[in-house]
Amino acid sequence: MTSRTDFSWAAASAPERLEAALARIKSDPSAASVYISAFTDTARAQAVSVAEAGDALPLAGALVSIKALFDVAGEVTSSAAKVMTANEPAQADAPCIARLRSAGAVFTGLTNMSEFAYSGLGLNPHYGTPDNPAYPGCAPGGSTSGGAVAVALGLCDIAIGSDTGGSLRIPAAFTGITGFKPSQASVPMAGGNALSDTLDSFGPMARTVAACELAWQIMAGRPAEPVKAQTRRLIVPLNFGLDVLDPEVAAGFDDLKQRLIQAGFEITERPIEAIELHKAIAAWHLTSVESRAHYETQFQTRASEFDPRVHARMAKADEISAVTYRQSLNRHYEFVRAFAAELGDDLLLLPTVPILPPALSDLQDDEAFGRFNLLALRNPSLANSADGCSVALPFQSQGKVLSAMLIGAGGIDDILLAAAKAVEEALS
Amino acid sequence: MTSRTDFSWAAASAPERLEAALARIKSDPSAASVYISAFTDTARAQAVSVAEAGDALPLAGALVSIKALFDVAGEVTSSAAKVMTANEPAQADAPCIARLRSAGAVFTGLTNMSEFAYSGLGLNPHYGTPDNPAYPGCAPGGSTSGGAVAVALGLCDIAIGSDTGGSLRIPAAFTGITGFKPSQASVPMAGGNALSDTLDSFGPMARTVAACELAWQIMAGRPAEPVKAQTRRLIVPLNFGLDVLDPEVAAGFDDLKQRLIQAGFEITERPIEAIELHKAIAAWHLTSVESRAHYETQFQTRASEFDPRVHARMAKADEISAVTYRQSLNRHYEFVRAFAAELGDDLLLLPTVPILPPALSDLQDDEAFGRFNLLALRNPSLANSADGCSVALPFQSQGKVLSAMLIGAGGIDDILLAAAKAVEEALS
Repeated sequence: MTSRTDFSWAAASAPERLEAALARIKSDPSAASVYISAFTDTARAQAVSVAEAGDALPLAGALVSIKALFDVAGEVTSSAAKVMTANEPAQADAPCIARLRSAGAVFTGLTNMSEFAYSGLGLNPHYGTPDNPAYPGCAPGGSTSGGAVAVALGLCDIAIGSDTGGSLRIPAAFTGITGFKPSQASVPMAGGNALSDTLDSFGPMARTVAACELAWQIMAGRPAEPVKAQTRRLIVPLNFGLDVLDPEVAAGFDDLKQRLIQAGFEITERPIEAIELHKAIAAWHLTSVESRAHYETQFQTRASEFDPRVHARMAKADEISAVTYRQSLNRHYEFVRAFAAELGDDLLLLPTVPILPPALSDLQDDEAFGRFNLLALRNPSLANSADGCSVALPFQSQGKVLSAMLIGAGGIDDILLAAAKAVEEALS
Repeated sequence: MTSRTDFSWAAASAPERLEAALARIKSDPSAASVYISAFTDTARAQAVSVAEAGDALPLAGALVSIKALFDVAGEVTSSAAKVMTANEPAQADAPCIARLRSAGAVFTGLTNMSEFAYSGLGLNPHYGTPDNPAYPGCAPGGSTSGGAVAVALGLCDIAIGSDTGGSLRIPAAFTGITGFKPSQASVPMAGGNALSDTLDSFGPMARTVAACELAWQIMAGRPAEPVKAQTRRLIVPLNFGLDVLDPEVAAGFDDLKQRLIQAGFEITERPIEAIELHKAIAAWHLTSVESRAHYETQFQTRASEFDPRVHARMAKADEISAVTYRQSLNRHYEFVRAFAAELGDDLLLLPTVPILPPALSDLQDDEAFGRFNLLALRNPSLANSADGCSVALPFQSQGKVLSAMLIGAGGIDDILLAAAKAVEEALS
């Protein structure tokens, strides 16, 4: 079991830590564009209340940032989209946010993101793009760009976000923190703006697996449970995710495998047959159609106010028929079943992303943006396609900040997190 | 608890009862078009095996017919569609069929149905339309036409079918038997040809609620459990299902309510707000797109071999975009949540169908067919739209065979069946 003292927060220091964070959010140049809305009065009230109540609650005093697509009572839920900023404020917290509030979290604000959570590099033309503290001048990764940078800079302890194709794990990988995409069904999806109903899931980022696990248990409304199975067996799927690697990523992954083997892990390298089904699915069928279904009015009437790259991706929904969309959805469910049947409780090990964070200056060109974006999404989106769970774990190799990813089938989050802690320990 | 002796079957008499059924299937004019394929050798082998094993298994000796859309090992799964008859035979039973086999059922054959289970009157141009024993010369109801008539004629004890908008309950109502549409999630959907992935569910028809309950428990792979809640409170939803009633149906429903009140039921008549959401959903968006997704190749290449009325309904998928389809699917899920939230464990009471079975001669006209079809589907499809559970219960009033329907939210099948037994008792 993890004890409270393993975490960086405490009830008594909440007001002081909050003030320090708010001061940096306001004036530290590296924090620019991280939050689209920092909470001051409400956060201070939470911090004072928590400090008075003491440490009984599991998140008492934890500074928690919230991706701008979750309902927070009294705030506009904009998904960092200009076409959403005039919406009415949310009347109530999203259920998963309400649970964090009840657990003693202090909400520092709404973090920046790719518009509507569309795409994996973290650029936003309306609110600017947060710089990457681990790779200055480079993309922070997305879509939960602000959340990852907030954790990396120490502007919050936990960042709550969503993950449709890697949106928690890509920015975690690019900034050197931990990101956890839980199984979709474990956390209520109400009160969060959708990108793809089929592929979205809500989860946390933090500095450690233990902090992610705690935040997820609270979001999921489930008590901590003893893990039923612990595995030190990992499978590297030889037919997926290992080509077109940046040399540093390839060398780092080899290094990682050696370190894990030395730490007592058993690593099997073999093809996973079910993944061939995944490769045949056009995930954009799901994201374009499902996002359009939610934002069709804005899409049709206020096109010029969209990020043009987001609008172009949503426009692709018009290229496929209803029947083709449904066929892609059926293939998705077929893959979910096949992946779970083949993997069981086993876990895959992959580089989270095949590339180092691209320089922001290289992403002005649409073609280059599209190419890097697809590469960033390629590996993590396997877990969304499988309706599974996945964690991105930072490690360093030859001076580079890199990331290892574990993927399991849906519903084995506890097994995944137990293995992630063992990997984290081996890599520390 | 129901004891074995409440049922009409027994292991020892299985061979004899099977022979009697096979003889009638072969030569009784009223059984014409009921089965599209009667099993003889395999059924006899099952019957002998069951007779030797004795009564230990719960279905030992029960004659069970199977709608022609379920995989039965060694048989072609055609959905009574000409374009499917040349398919390869199924390699294995559908999981729910395999469970029935393991429970001692004797499979009498594959029953006739509306092509692809599309539409609620039970007509099939390829295999003919079974006559209605309760209303000779009239539609048997569909899509599980053959199954219902087989039970009504005593050609089987239990008929296994599917229900996408009433396909177990409409033919049950028209022929005077009991039909149970379970919550979709309770029975595995593998090995059954889909009509609408969203709205389909698999379940039984029989002469009694107890027989339906037993078959369902076996299909669902769940043991009989003590019912957690029993209710004698029923709600008649004043804003749904009570207009355009045939005079006999209206009079019979009034009579029914009085009989139930006299038997100690509390009947509340009030509007159900959530049902307004249901009324705004175009269910054909789901059925047309989802059926096309499965049978697109046949639809595009062998149009002339379809039932023209089925082909016309599938063709409507081309009238809506992928985005519109997804919006309808989202509205469906919204209704599912709203219905469950408003109803809780409460049950609705309605006439199963607003009309008496139409004469087959009146259905030659496409316009009349369409009108009667929509009326037949109108009330039962509420349960599919709600992802709920529902049972159709026969009763007689002023010499007419009529049917009362209970509907509950998803997952409360046990509560529904307990109430259905009490209604059945009150009406007997």
